[in-house]
Amino acid sequence: MKHVGKQSIIFEKKIYVVSTSSIVGGKEGDGPISEYFDVILEDMSLGENSWEKAESRLVEESFKLAIKKAGMKNEDIDYVIAGDLLNQSIGTTYGVKSLGRPFLGVYGACSTFGESLSLGSIILDGGGGENILVGASSHFCTAERQFRTPLELGSQRPPTASWTVTGDGSAVISSNNKYENKGLPKIKKITTGKIVDMGINDPNNMGAAMAPAAADTILTHFSDFELDVNYYDLVITGDLGHVGRQLTNNILLENGLDISDIYTDCGIEIFDKKTQDTHCGGSGCACSAVTFTGMIYKKMCKGEILKVLFVPTGALLSATSIQQGQSIPSIAHAVAIEM
Amino acid sequence: MKHVGKQSIIFEKKIYVVSTSSIVGGKEGDGPISEYFDVILEDMSLGENSWEKAESRLVEESFKLAIKKAGMKNEDIDYVIAGDLLNQSIGTTYGVKSLGRPFLGVYGACSTFGESLSLGSIILDGGGGENILVGASSHFCTAERQFRTPLELGSQRPPTASWTVTGDGSAVISSNNKYENKGLPKIKKITTGKIVDMGINDPNNMGAAMAPAAADTILTHFSDFELDVNYYDLVITGDLGHVGRQLTNNILLENGLDISDIYTDCGIEIFDKKTQDTHCGGSGCACSAVTFTGMIYKKMCKGEILKVLFVPTGALLSATSIQQGQSIPSIAHAVAIEM
Repeated sequence: MKHVGKQSIIFEKKIYVVSTSSIVGGKEGDGPISEYFDVILEDMSLGENSWEKAESRLVEESFKLAIKKAGMKNEDIDYVIAGDLLNQSIGTTYGVKSLGRPFLGVYGACSTFGESLSLGSIILDGGGGENILVGASSHFCTAERQFRTPLELGSQRPPTASWTVTGDGSAVISSNNKYENKGLPKIKKITTGKIVDMGINDPNNMGAAMAPAAADTILTHFSDFELDVNYYDLVITGDLGHVGRQLTNNILLENGLDISDIYTDCGIEIFDKKTQDTHCGGSGCACSAVTFTGMIYKKMCKGEILKVLFVPTGALLSATSIQQGQSIPSIAHAVAIEM
Repeated sequence: MKHVGKQSIIFEKKIYVVSTSSIVGGKEGDGPISEYFDVILEDMSLGENSWEKAESRLVEESFKLAIKKAGMKNEDIDYVIAGDLLNQSIGTTYGVKSLGRPFLGVYGACSTFGESLSLGSIILDGGGGENILVGASSHFCTAERQFRTPLELGSQRPPTASWTVTGDGSAVISSNNKYENKGLPKIKKITTGKIVDMGINDPNNMGAAMAPAAADTILTHFSDFELDVNYYDLVITGDLGHVGRQLTNNILLENGLDISDIYTDCGIEIFDKKTQDTHCGGSGCACSAVTFTGMIYKKMCKGEILKVLFVPTGALLSATSIQQGQSIPSIAHAVAIEM
């Protein structure tokens, strides 16, 4: 690999996205990109007696599905790189343990899937392994309880609030040459984000908090690789929703980058604002993870889109930091996937 | 780099540990390895109005010190890789944001510093960057409140309980050839741990929970590299304390690996059990981080020890998982540092 510009890397090996898994809840299954998901849960508890255990089960099922779809066994996976939103990432750690594979836990809030893909690609390109499982999850019921208010309170949601996606998106990525000419999407370049904090401290407006971080990473990516404005077929941020997407686009325009026609956000795509009452859109680690492993990956495999800049976004707050009056530091990691 | 055996990597480039920073609280400053720390805090609040803000300030000060001691500026750092124990890693995220550098958040509980060193070395060896800042922190007052009981309750501690270290250990690592022949320790090999869970569910006995994970990683490391039992001058686990160290040694002996004479634990070294009332020993992300960046690094630079296997250990529990009756999944990452 080669370090490029201010904060980017271009890979030398071909890093294939061999398989993906996307398991989602019922609400996501009723949304506009429903047809692309592998599994739509009928029971958000997955038979467990707590929401946290349900999220761990969701992670475990999704990991197993991605490995199975890759035609691999657990032993073929050199590393698992994953994370989630729960305190101490218990969704992931309790979900991954039965696999018995070397594990690297990551935390980037809802940018986690971008971080997992980036680090996995770095390890593969360097020769530290051959097959890596990457993933990220979130669950509406665990996230609401932890970050906002318990569901039982029935609190009202302001229009800037987003709806945490229930789901897990996982992928097996590989540097094995046997995947050449199989029509698989490849991870080509990454731009790792800096923390940007513009002083927003409303956890019900995370799109606004994350927009400057998203714009910073996108601008840096285009500048580091000296890319033409028309280079990508699709630029898609993680979970900014309607408010954050508009703000990001405004910042990009102010900086002379007009990608308005090809720029959208996973939080906008995953729910139908008019009929699903999800206000600002989808959020959570799973929002970008399942939109990528579901819709984007499958559209790429069919040749419907060829070059994608995928930019998961994360709001690095905690309930404690908000209670103590702190603002919301945010981050976004860009991953360029091409056919 | 080359993937070796079941779960290890050997690096091809020389990965130098250019500088380290170790900032600790007063209790650590009263302990047996006090002379090796860079800064001993007089005020554990660092002038902040909450313990969480204090931990973020500690992280920020330690990061700045490591960069300064390396003779670098913020812009020279290609990536920051760090984490801590707080919910959503706020100790780290609020501490790192002022640096303005690309950030990769990691979560491995108290094994975090081992994970940071591993991932940093992988990026450098692959050519994805030249200088990387790695770190991990914990604070007694934030950890007690979050994982056990608020300090104000004055709860009694059982003899198997450990004492969370207040501190931050950070290091600048580099692949730049200009550091050759400067007498700096180099990161040579890593073994990334699997999650091991033997059913322990007592958060006041984390040494016992983590011991099987530590033993698994050490045994795999010796086996992957076919190392002689006398290869290392020192094998040191992260924060098992007295109970966990004994259990780990027993498992190693049962598996035919007798390193009893050169095997100790950072949680044993950092406090004096007889005079400091720390029961089982030190714990927390900072326990292994400051013992490495303080004592081990400085002894290596002086030539007092030449080959070290450093094995930070992590208990991947949360308050929620314990309240829900779950056992404690654990992990350990081995990093071989040699002169």
